[in-house]
Amino acid sequence: MIEEEAGQEDVRQDNVCLNLKAGEAASGDQHDLCSKDGQKHMDYILTYSTKKLFSDLHPSLSLKEKTCCLSCCQPCARDQSLRKYHGGTQKQSLRSQEEEKVLCREEFEDNLKKMGLHLEKDESNRISGVGFLKIHAPWDILCREAEFLKLKMPTKEFYQATPQHKMRKLNAFFKRITAPLLPNVGDTETEDIKKVCYPFSREKLHLFDLSDMDSFFDTKTRSLIVFEVLKRAKCNRGENSWGLNSLIAHGVYTEAYPLHDGDIEFENTDVNDRMVLYREWASYSNFYKYQPISLIRKYFGEKIGLYFAWLGLYTQMLIFAAIVGVLVFLYGCITVDDDIPSMEICDKRNNITMCPLCDKSCSYWKLTMACGTARASHLFDSTATVLFSIFMALWAAMFMESWKRRQMRLNYMWDLTNFEEEEDSMKDHPRADYKIKVHQKTLNRMQRKPHKAKAAKLTWRDRMPAYMTFIAIMLLMFLMTFAILFGVIIYRVTTQASLQMSSMPSIRANVRLTVKSTAVIINVVVILILDEVYSKIARWLTILEVPKTDKSFEQRLILKTFILKFLNAFSPIFYIAFIRGKLIGRPGNYLYIYKSYRMEECAHTGCLMELCIQLSITMLGKQLIQNNLFEIGIPKLKKLIRRIKTKRAPVQEEQDDKDLKRYEADFFLEPFVSLNPEYMEMIIQFGFVTLFVASFPLAPLFALLNNVIEIRLDAKKFVAELRRPVAARAKDIGIWYNLLRGISKAAIIVNAFVIAFTSDFIPRLVYQYGYSPDGTMHGFINHTLSYFNVSHFQAETHPLQPLHLGYKVEVCRYKDYRMAPWSFNPYDISKVYWAILAGRLAFVIIFQNVVMLLSDFVDWVIPDIPKEIITRIYEEKMQMVEFFMREEHSLYSMPMLDNQDENRPTPQLRRS
Amino acid sequence: MIEEEAGQEDVRQDNVCLNLKAGEAASGDQHDLCSKDGQKHMDYILTYSTKKLFSDLHPSLSLKEKTCCLSCCQPCARDQSLRKYHGGTQKQSLRSQEEEKVLCREEFEDNLKKMGLHLEKDESNRISGVGFLKIHAPWDILCREAEFLKLKMPTKEFYQATPQHKMRKLNAFFKRITAPLLPNVGDTETEDIKKVCYPFSREKLHLFDLSDMDSFFDTKTRSLIVFEVLKRAKCNRGENSWGLNSLIAHGVYTEAYPLHDGDIEFENTDVNDRMVLYREWASYSNFYKYQPISLIRKYFGEKIGLYFAWLGLYTQMLIFAAIVGVLVFLYGCITVDDDIPSMEICDKRNNITMCPLCDKSCSYWKLTMACGTARASHLFDSTATVLFSIFMALWAAMFMESWKRRQMRLNYMWDLTNFEEEEDSMKDHPRADYKIKVHQKTLNRMQRKPHKAKAAKLTWRDRMPAYMTFIAIMLLMFLMTFAILFGVIIYRVTTQASLQMSSMPSIRANVRLTVKSTAVIINVVVILILDEVYSKIARWLTILEVPKTDKSFEQRLILKTFILKFLNAFSPIFYIAFIRGKLIGRPGNYLYIYKSYRMEECAHTGCLMELCIQLSITMLGKQLIQNNLFEIGIPKLKKLIRRIKTKRAPVQEEQDDKDLKRYEADFFLEPFVSLNPEYMEMIIQFGFVTLFVASFPLAPLFALLNNVIEIRLDAKKFVAELRRPVAARAKDIGIWYNLLRGISKAAIIVNAFVIAFTSDFIPRLVYQYGYSPDGTMHGFINHTLSYFNVSHFQAETHPLQPLHLGYKVEVCRYKDYRMAPWSFNPYDISKVYWAILAGRLAFVIIFQNVVMLLSDFVDWVIPDIPKEIITRIYEEKMQMVEFFMREEHSLYSMPMLDNQDENRPTPQLRRS
Repeated sequence: MIEEEAGQEDVRQDNVCLNLKAGEAASGDQHDLCSKDGQKHMDYILTYSTKKLFSDLHPSLSLKEKTCCLSCCQPCARDQSLRKYHGGTQKQSLRSQEEEKVLCREEFEDNLKKMGLHLEKDESNRISGVGFLKIHAPWDILCREAEFLKLKMPTKEFYQATPQHKMRKLNAFFKRITAPLLPNVGDTETEDIKKVCYPFSREKLHLFDLSDMDSFFDTKTRSLIVFEVLKRAKCNRGENSWGLNSLIAHGVYTEAYPLHDGDIEFENTDVNDRMVLYREWASYSNFYKYQPISLIRKYFGEKIGLYFAWLGLYTQMLIFAAIVGVLVFLYGCITVDDDIPSMEICDKRNNITMCPLCDKSCSYWKLTMACGTARASHLFDSTATVLFSIFMALWAAMFMESWKRRQMRLNYMWDLTNFEEEEDSMKDHPRADYKIKVHQKTLNRMQRKPHKAKAAKLTWRDRMPAYMTFIAIMLLMFLMTFAILFGVIIYRVTTQASLQMSSMPSIRANVRLTVKSTAVIINVVVILILDEVYSKIARWLTILEVPKTDKSFEQRLILKTFILKFLNAFSPIFYIAFIRGKLIGRPGNYLYIYKSYRMEECAHTGCLMELCIQLSITMLGKQLIQNNLFEIGIPKLKKLIRRIKTKRAPVQEEQDDKDLKRYEADFFLEPFVSLNPEYMEMIIQFGFVTLFVASFPLAPLFALLNNVIEIRLDAKKFVAELRRPVAARAKDIGIWYNLLRGISKAAIIVNAFVIAFTSDFIPRLVYQYGYSPDGTMHGFINHTLSYFNVSHFQAETHPLQPLHLGYKVEVCRYKDYRMAPWSFNPYDISKVYWAILAGRLAFVIIFQNVVMLLSDFVDWVIPDIPKEIITRIYEEKMQMVEFFMREEHSLYSMPMLDNQDENRPTPQLRRS
Repeated sequence: MIEEEAGQEDVRQDNVCLNLKAGEAASGDQHDLCSKDGQKHMDYILTYSTKKLFSDLHPSLSLKEKTCCLSCCQPCARDQSLRKYHGGTQKQSLRSQEEEKVLCREEFEDNLKKMGLHLEKDESNRISGVGFLKIHAPWDILCREAEFLKLKMPTKEFYQATPQHKMRKLNAFFKRITAPLLPNVGDTETEDIKKVCYPFSREKLHLFDLSDMDSFFDTKTRSLIVFEVLKRAKCNRGENSWGLNSLIAHGVYTEAYPLHDGDIEFENTDVNDRMVLYREWASYSNFYKYQPISLIRKYFGEKIGLYFAWLGLYTQMLIFAAIVGVLVFLYGCITVDDDIPSMEICDKRNNITMCPLCDKSCSYWKLTMACGTARASHLFDSTATVLFSIFMALWAAMFMESWKRRQMRLNYMWDLTNFEEEEDSMKDHPRADYKIKVHQKTLNRMQRKPHKAKAAKLTWRDRMPAYMTFIAIMLLMFLMTFAILFGVIIYRVTTQASLQMSSMPSIRANVRLTVKSTAVIINVVVILILDEVYSKIARWLTILEVPKTDKSFEQRLILKTFILKFLNAFSPIFYIAFIRGKLIGRPGNYLYIYKSYRMEECAHTGCLMELCIQLSITMLGKQLIQNNLFEIGIPKLKKLIRRIKTKRAPVQEEQDDKDLKRYEADFFLEPFVSLNPEYMEMIIQFGFVTLFVASFPLAPLFALLNNVIEIRLDAKKFVAELRRPVAARAKDIGIWYNLLRGISKAAIIVNAFVIAFTSDFIPRLVYQYGYSPDGTMHGFINHTLSYFNVSHFQAETHPLQPLHLGYKVEVCRYKDYRMAPWSFNPYDISKVYWAILAGRLAFVIIFQNVVMLLSDFVDWVIPDIPKEIITRIYEEKMQMVEFFMREEHSLYSMPMLDNQDENRPTPQLRRS
């Protein structure tokens, strides 16, 4: 149908726009392309390899392969498999392959011309071996496609929101306060006044604001339109017809990208959006400012605009969380001296002898030695922490709600309210991989049952092997993660044991610290390495599944990557929080892993401190290394490699950079792949901020500091280091919202368990209200310690230096609720243990349900769509209808005017 | 703007439709009204009181007041308050009031005529004192309003879904199977072929299927359109302008209703939809059939259609639940003989003496006496019950998902996919009450600050008193519910005590049964009475709040009614499940309420049996009494009263009924108020089915039986006993969906608690795996019983007949986990108690989270929109576009045809 329409367009002379005639376009008159400012009208670039034809026997022939493999790894693999499938033509001469590519390009370009695009080739450029195909869309093509895409374009009408009387003063005050925080981008379109937009239609041209036809379609829209046309264009190769993606996958074209608006440097007088973004957004000195979201959207499109809006809101919300988190931490610091349990531990008068922490080499120790840890633990394990967990759960609910509202506001501002993504997804073309697979299946079926020759489609049965692989790999990954965890544990246990046996007292004193920190660092390094490995594996697994459309591919990829990365980042933390120190047995009957290595114990005051250390180091390590090293370093490295590959001497580079044409300069930039890694990073961070926040109230602060940098870092990357992405329309952040929601739900239960089982909150409460003789915490420490008769040690586990403390120990203490050796059932679990367990479980139930109820309440109380936006949408719609009426009226009631105004087509003229 | 448009319409001659000219309409040529079949074109009826003017000094003057009060209670109250507010004009002569009404009617009717409606008055009918205003909308008004309302009307195009190859056979088989279940309504429009609908537009008349202009707009649509016009029409009274609602509220008109299609009897040869519905839907003999949903929607509109579709799906889903529930019950029945605990209780060799169940009058008893209860308990408290609770949670999730899909399917079938309810709500006019209140406020403000004379609006501050009242009443209701509960408890305790003291052994033997059943019956009666009271209170509270729009009124009313009714229905059940038997103290130290009445104990095997009895009787009682008595009896009674009021001798009635005109017959029907009571009843039932299903697996069966009747009962009511409602458009079931969702979420946690705390599931599990010497249940009963030394009874609580059993009792047993009298801490809570408590709590956590996860999984796995519907929506849209193109082409490429075809307006003609 589209083709048909396009055909109609071509046939009739377009009497509306520009001076270009469709006929000129078809004849390929290329001088129009670079008419005004030399490059403004280049809407899209395709590159191809020009070397091959002249050097087909040269050994450097495989260069193309390499270049291709660098920029788009899996297409090449696919390419080969495809070639194999096409009949084992591995030995087919490379020469003919190259010729075929040229033919294919010619056909494709002919088709593009037929569709109305203007093309220009540039093979004699500064980059040897690379040919550029510059594509320009003339006005009529833009109009046609804009109509087909239902793009909403600004009309002549302005909509001014009726100001709310009550809030006017408050708003004005707020605006004055925040004025210095606004980016200086000269944004005229504020929230209160906006141009009414309407789906573009060539029959209603008179409605639109065509005062400046050159900029009516901005560069982003132009490239989007050309991209849509390119997606539809085909080149027939045998029984297949290849679209742009297939062409790139088969190496017919090497790269495809739209152009940036201009240079980021301030040398030219001509100010462009990219320059403004670079100055006002992508600079660390603006870290305290709001982001120029509408300019970002204008330049990069809605999808990227939404990402930065989301990141901005997240960072903004983190400010509150960070402040409260710091206050909680400070509360811990202030009250540390009043904390009775740690006072009791530190009190030398309480002469408590503890049982040895390891077999043989360790000896009895005084509880006062744990004084430091106990005081440090209190910083993170005070009553305030419980309140903070509740606060963070509500904060997460609040954040989700705020985002929904913000998204709706942006949808309104960006005129996406009626944009339906389902329609888009229906239009999605199947991926090249999918088509090949389906074709293969159809062929197979035809061989088996020639009479039933109908097109097949992939069912779950075809995907079963892929699913099985996924499950197998998942299990493997899961096991691997645990194996590594286990390895680190073994490392800790063995190192600790061996260091304990060391004769140097200085080593022995610092054993715990050394072991802990080295283990955590190993952990972080392993996590970082596995993170990269898992990305690759997830992609490979998704390719195996052969999803039908790009959208489905993306969703499956995201889900797999998320599961793997999440497990990777959080499994050591889960281990420390919930497993470690829970299954250690008791003195005289310890649990052993692998012969004689005892399971790890936590420090006396619970595992919370260690959880805290693990969390902070993992979080900091991930953020520092991934941000700085990976995000800044690796793109630079890649750019360097790319330049070297194209064989330009890096010495000349500096001078040449200025002289490069826009499309040449952009060629050297890294291609934009997807926003997913950026989102993924933030989602994992959101996990750190919410999941274990009960044990580490400073997490939001760390996240905040990271994000302030992250925003500008990403901005720099998008503005200066990546090719311009094709603007993608999107109404929401899609699957990420669901993942966020899932994490914030999981956070409630995880925090409930952390408070109940990892911290000492419940035992303290039970003691104070159930067992304390005077209702205070005095005696709590004694209450938590059970007695052990040292004569009950198993053989070979006695401490080697029993007199280490200077006296003979007969009864030592250990942290557990068990019966005394002299009771009826020695070392049996005591009633207090069960009472405390019941308390812990009851706390989990109450906490989970209360917090879930509160979250749901927040969800319910805050409307998803701001009331003001509902009113505005309605008012704008009404104004639009009125404007319609007015325009129609003036158009049809004064037919004389139509002939005077040449830019305004009359329906009569068009239809006759 | 609407008025403007209407004006334009009136001015120009309509050259499109019917033979009626707008001029004729304005001149009030009434013979057109009853032209063809006498009544078909009467689209709406307004009635008014005609008696007043001639009998204003007669004592029967107040008749109108009564009639009014009968049909619409609160408007009259409002009327009086309004009159009071208008300046204490209580003494204003009634005569002038009546005259004012006549004037008002005249003005209003003039306005209606100006808007293009045709009116006809009938004051000389068979019902004395009632005048009828018959309203008819001519074709051009219908067209204009249909366009304004964006009604989707059928075009000439048919859409046939492409059949899916794979499922074709299965579908055909399924269709053959279900064929006898389909109602015989001659529905040509199946799911596979449907007319493509498009928002009606007068400029695109050529698209629509105008072959039969009379039935192009069906009666439902016609009345909807007239109703919309009526809502816009105004009558100016002083500074107020009254709309239809205000006019009815002030008694200017008494009733307003659209007409039914015809009689339900089969005497006429003319078959109408109402007749078909009565025969095929509203009859008990069709109980096993599907409902003719599309015909229901065609006749009553989308909102009522959705209700019946929802009720149908709910009933259908209940079939599965009922089957599984019965199986679970049967499993209980079959395994009752193998149940070791009840065998042990019934075994006379276990000579266990139990402590007395009440003070003084009761004596020791043998555990074998509890044999019957124990065996009965097992029927509902087996392992299968746990699985059944999980099943029911998933069933609920499944039901929600199925409904979403069904709703989407109906939306597609009924062309509502693009219908936006927000727009509708924006157009909603403020309610009369609200306007009065605002006016009052504005006046007040003007008196205080005359210079600041601007229109006020109601803020939360104005509503504060209403909110406070709501909270106060809520608390009061809450207290009252508990007071009644408490009263019933007192009744049980006292009756039991007094009956126990009775000397007749037969009475004493049946004490428990008598007390239990009478108490439950009292409970049910109280619940039923309060249910009605609460409905009234909720309405009164909502009126106090003065919501702005009807929609807001409805939502607030629903929420309040739901909260009150839910509390009312479920608080006794919650009490039995979670409070009763938990706080009884122990022998020798019982808890007493009010001096010497001990808190109730449950039967030996837990409260589950009693919960079960309470549930079944409440549910059955509510359903039987509310359904049969209230839903069938009361409407009949009301109809009778109405007839008597209008003073027609009931003897003549029978013969007259046949001769009554349609609008007179409909006048005697009960007015349709709202669907809310129907929904409310079902939601409460859904609560019974899901909330405590762990204790009563037969609940789904009861609900199923009730609903099968309920559907036909409601059908009868809507078809035969109510006036036809104005068709309301709706996309979904609104707030009810959220309530359902809330209940099914609450059900998970409630069931977890019922299994953990009310049933003996966890103690059995803990015993079997933790304490049993041989891993079987043998010895469980003994394990659950503690010892009590009878010498420790408090003074005055010794049984009066200690030798009742024939021997002297020194140690009796009671059900609790406490230390023996000879232990170190006699009667202290034992370790087993805490272990079991921990087990119970752990079960709650595991059950809740696992089931929630499973529900979410079900939610995630089943797509909200059936894939097939997405495809169809898209295909239909594409076909529509194609059809558009084709029509436009044929229209504009052959301009000669335009003049020949008079029914088809050309844009040129209309615009010039």
